[in-house]
Amino acid sequence: MSKTIEFYYDYGSPATYLAWSQIYKLAEKHGATVVRKPALLGGIFKETGNAAPANVPAKGKWLFKDLDRYANRYGVPMQFNQAFPINTIYLMRGALYAQQEGFIEAYDEAIFNAVWRDNKNMNDPEVVGAVLTEAGFDTAAILAATQDSDIKKKLFAVTAEAVENGLFGMPAFIVDGELYWGQDRMDWVEEAIS
Amino acid sequence: MSKTIEFYYDYGSPATYLAWSQIYKLAEKHGATVVRKPALLGGIFKETGNAAPANVPAKGKWLFKDLDRYANRYGVPMQFNQAFPINTIYLMRGALYAQQEGFIEAYDEAIFNAVWRDNKNMNDPEVVGAVLTEAGFDTAAILAATQDSDIKKKLFAVTAEAVENGLFGMPAFIVDGELYWGQDRMDWVEEAIS
Repeated sequence: MSKTIEFYYDYGSPATYLAWSQIYKLAEKHGATVVRKPALLGGIFKETGNAAPANVPAKGKWLFKDLDRYANRYGVPMQFNQAFPINTIYLMRGALYAQQEGFIEAYDEAIFNAVWRDNKNMNDPEVVGAVLTEAGFDTAAILAATQDSDIKKKLFAVTAEAVENGLFGMPAFIVDGELYWGQDRMDWVEEAIS
Repeated sequence: MSKTIEFYYDYGSPATYLAWSQIYKLAEKHGATVVRKPALLGGIFKETGNAAPANVPAKGKWLFKDLDRYANRYGVPMQFNQAFPINTIYLMRGALYAQQEGFIEAYDEAIFNAVWRDNKNMNDPEVVGAVLTEAGFDTAAILAATQDSDIKKKLFAVTAEAVENGLFGMPAFIVDGELYWGQDRMDWVEEAIS
């Protein structure tokens, strides 16, 4: 029977970029389905009392090196974003709109690559607009959706669901009710879907 | 040329127990040498502003499951210690004495197994005494050493050296000046010594 991977993600997390770069290939290899769950990492941190790893400077320093090692292992182009940390609330609302309108795959690609491959300052609304337009999206419609109350509620709801499901960080995967946290746990996800 | 792995450890960390259970086999396989660095994890946390993962309850809950998965993968018996967290300052001073006197290998085995295999309450000095005696050590000499000022200074020194080397948690490994953190990074350690 085909398995389902729930993939919780936020564009602001470099480890999640690496996970995104691999998880669809992995799912395809095993005939599994990925269910996209765009959620707000900052909201999860707040609800669970967690914090970004880089809040501990020595951990942040090590982590950037560690991510670079994995990027090389995966063969994925990656630059550490100069504007880090990115306030992703509008980007994630845009994701829920893109999901609703059926262009989430292209939207994920545009945003993840802008942040972690192309080092764009996605804290700057003008840069975000340019990235969306260049990707061929209806930028005005997306920006309008980021102020839509149903979209706002939906982002709260998915984030709350993430916390209920035991998440405290990202990326996170759920397969058969089991939580796997970290881009370094994709081997366990693979076991679970095999 | 034979490589050296500096292995920083504290008996109070379950992930470090798993690392200890594997790292010597790995080193032997590749003709590498392990240099034991008993240090105080609590001291490293304090110096770097880090905290135990279980301070975030959702993370602690997930981590215990994660460690159990790895214990099964490695085929290593493991029980979560009921007295966790263990105050390891005396145990780590004992390790430095054991290292000085040449019985550190047996001491590591006795203490790691008491905490993470046999679920002994190593916060209780009587239990610690019984574990040491049962392992065939000179318990009185070890207890005396835990009050020795040179041993105390040595534990401070190794812990300070750990922080200087970029550590913020345990287990940690250094190979050729590169830091690897976590029992889940032993594949990188293996690459580095191969």
